[in-house]
Amino acid sequence: MSGNQDRHEAFEGCFGGLAAIGRDRGGGWTRLAWTEEDRAARAWFEAEAADRGLEVERDSAGNLWAWWRGPEPDPGPEAQVVGVGSHLDTVRGGGAYDGALGVVSGLLAVGELIERGVEPRRPVAVVAFADEEGGRFGVPLFGSRVLTGALDPAELLGRADEHGTSVAEALAAAGIAPDGFGPDPARVGRLAAFVELHVEQGRGLADLDQPVALATAMWPHGRWRLTVTGEANHAGTTRLADRRDPMLGLAAAVLAARAAATELAAVATVGRVLVEPNSANSVPGRVSAWLDARAEEDQRLDWLLAAFEAAVTDAAARNGLAVELASESRSPGVEFDRALTDRLDACLRASGLEPARLPTAAGHDAGALAAAAPTAMLFVRNPTGTSHSPAETAEVDDCLAGIDALAAVIEELACR
Amino acid sequence: MSGNQDRHEAFEGCFGGLAAIGRDRGGGWTRLAWTEEDRAARAWFEAEAADRGLEVERDSAGNLWAWWRGPEPDPGPEAQVVGVGSHLDTVRGGGAYDGALGVVSGLLAVGELIERGVEPRRPVAVVAFADEEGGRFGVPLFGSRVLTGALDPAELLGRADEHGTSVAEALAAAGIAPDGFGPDPARVGRLAAFVELHVEQGRGLADLDQPVALATAMWPHGRWRLTVTGEANHAGTTRLADRRDPMLGLAAAVLAARAAATELAAVATVGRVLVEPNSANSVPGRVSAWLDARAEEDQRLDWLLAAFEAAVTDAAARNGLAVELASESRSPGVEFDRALTDRLDACLRASGLEPARLPTAAGHDAGALAAAAPTAMLFVRNPTGTSHSPAETAEVDDCLAGIDALAAVIEELACR
Repeated sequence: MSGNQDRHEAFEGCFGGLAAIGRDRGGGWTRLAWTEEDRAARAWFEAEAADRGLEVERDSAGNLWAWWRGPEPDPGPEAQVVGVGSHLDTVRGGGAYDGALGVVSGLLAVGELIERGVEPRRPVAVVAFADEEGGRFGVPLFGSRVLTGALDPAELLGRADEHGTSVAEALAAAGIAPDGFGPDPARVGRLAAFVELHVEQGRGLADLDQPVALATAMWPHGRWRLTVTGEANHAGTTRLADRRDPMLGLAAAVLAARAAATELAAVATVGRVLVEPNSANSVPGRVSAWLDARAEEDQRLDWLLAAFEAAVTDAAARNGLAVELASESRSPGVEFDRALTDRLDACLRASGLEPARLPTAAGHDAGALAAAAPTAMLFVRNPTGTSHSPAETAEVDDCLAGIDALAAVIEELACR
Repeated sequence: MSGNQDRHEAFEGCFGGLAAIGRDRGGGWTRLAWTEEDRAARAWFEAEAADRGLEVERDSAGNLWAWWRGPEPDPGPEAQVVGVGSHLDTVRGGGAYDGALGVVSGLLAVGELIERGVEPRRPVAVVAFADEEGGRFGVPLFGSRVLTGALDPAELLGRADEHGTSVAEALAAAGIAPDGFGPDPARVGRLAAFVELHVEQGRGLADLDQPVALATAMWPHGRWRLTVTGEANHAGTTRLADRRDPMLGLAAAVLAARAAATELAAVATVGRVLVEPNSANSVPGRVSAWLDARAEEDQRLDWLLAAFEAAVTDAAARNGLAVELASESRSPGVEFDRALTDRLDACLRASGLEPARLPTAAGHDAGALAAAAPTAMLFVRNPTGTSHSPAETAEVDDCLAGIDALAAVIEELACR
């Protein structure tokens, strides 16, 4: 069908324009906030918006809003608006879809609605959030959280990247002065709804054999630092009975994290380990390890942590070790708006889709906005289930199904 | 008893002279081979030997021999001789006793025999071996193994320390020319016996509540590098079922090493671990770990390794991981001379001691000599069981018991 072929080409043209920016030598994509690659991606966004007759403005947090207002006169600053979108930046060596697919899908969905002669009754914005990944300054969800006021702009401005460039200097180079930088609660308050489409970062849809899902919630998650202290000693001459080997505490921690996560249908990861003195012929004196854990509910995360701590404490007691478990961060869960999600579900079913509902254990701008506006998310199937990696992918047909869904959602929310 | 008090003072004077050399800021002792500290320790040895009328010579491997020949005319170069001693060097930040106690005890034992008017029928040498620890050039048992021909001198000369100084340069600075450096099989061949006294490096004697033991054997030991490869992924969004987490292979390896060592009355240590990418919010892609294992017999070491490999392979299969286990080194066991050890046992019992017999899982110069001459070892109780650390220690009374034992042994082997 040539219509389908045209849509393939349109998708590949639009998506390919962004995917050409920030290719790195490792085969991945690297577009860090406020770099030359980021500037090129923003220029791409402005050009694609202009092609569709959308007017682009930058908010006080550095995010770009491409407005579809239709032929109606401006409904005024108090009018309720509908937002869709995601982000243009990537982690270092990331994939082509994370963030990009949501922005591309927003532009193409609005473009298709315009082509079909649909007219919005409420203004629609395709939003490209700034620095979602935090890959340069270590502050994820930068643009969305500055916008809502969840981050203190004054505290951010002095943060430096690995080359010593501050946030203030990076913003200034992009034309954003410190005194114009900060939250915009009125803008967020005008959002009747915000819907973020994102490539799935796991294999939920692949296993369900479906192209598109609605998000139910962002899981609460946290990071803890575990320090297990024993006694460094000679690996040859120290009898087993005389050892206080913290590596046994690490082994217990790794297995406890997996067992507790399995039991609680959660995820838990020991991804970072430091051993002292880290010498092949010494019993170590100290092992530090980081636990990253995420669960459907705060209660489950508490249970997971309690089971982990109990197992590690028990192994420590059996092996003469001291343990310390310190929280480094803890983020509460985010429930996406139930009424909005139900409305999107009905709308997608009316257009022939049967969206699954999946939770996510990653962070997203939609989650940051959820405290201030009704938000929902759409996921598009990722056959590899891999993310933050060049292996992250999506079939074009699934991306087109995602664009269909997003167009139906925009029509439902803004055009009826 | 004033005699005992005198002996305490004599021990503390002699031992204290050596222990004053190489104190480091961390509270330990650092005397690396052919450094200024090593030169000072050699000067101390020569002075202490001269005080007892012993003549010092340096062999072709850089070891010092302090000769007690008595009033008899020189029995000629073919005469069988008796050696005792140990080494003067330390690891970085090591203890005061490792090596030092054997040299001090040899000097004091010979000195006491001289004072008692005992005369040797065979020449006796107190030997201070060069660079036993290998702390500077990474080649342990340097002096003893060059002397027996177990190391190729030509291959050693080009080795460099961390500052780029070669063995050849270090030897030249100590007055040893490359063409005079190498093995001396005739010297080793003249040894009727070599007995090394050493502080124990575990808690065997402390638990037996005895001051002195005879060594039975040096355990075979080896080092293996384990590489566990999985797949790096997002710590939040990758479901447990989709993970190939090599940290689970590491946990299995640590527990398998301990379990196999316990079952086989051996020791096994995972002391060094490298995680890639070692990021708190990533499932790791690869974990490397080193296994150090030592057992009473080669067969037990083989069993230990087989059990370790089976457990790790099993954990890998269950978790979708690839494993590689590569041998980095393997040293056969050394049986100390049975007849010599039995003779020492009888001699010590005749002098009122009841020496325990203990194996050792550390390396010693006596082990290097064992291939070429009858050798035995005496251990002195170490209450902390700790070695290569400032916590290494021995009570003076136990050191005096060791000197008694060594004097009895020298009298038995050289004076009857």
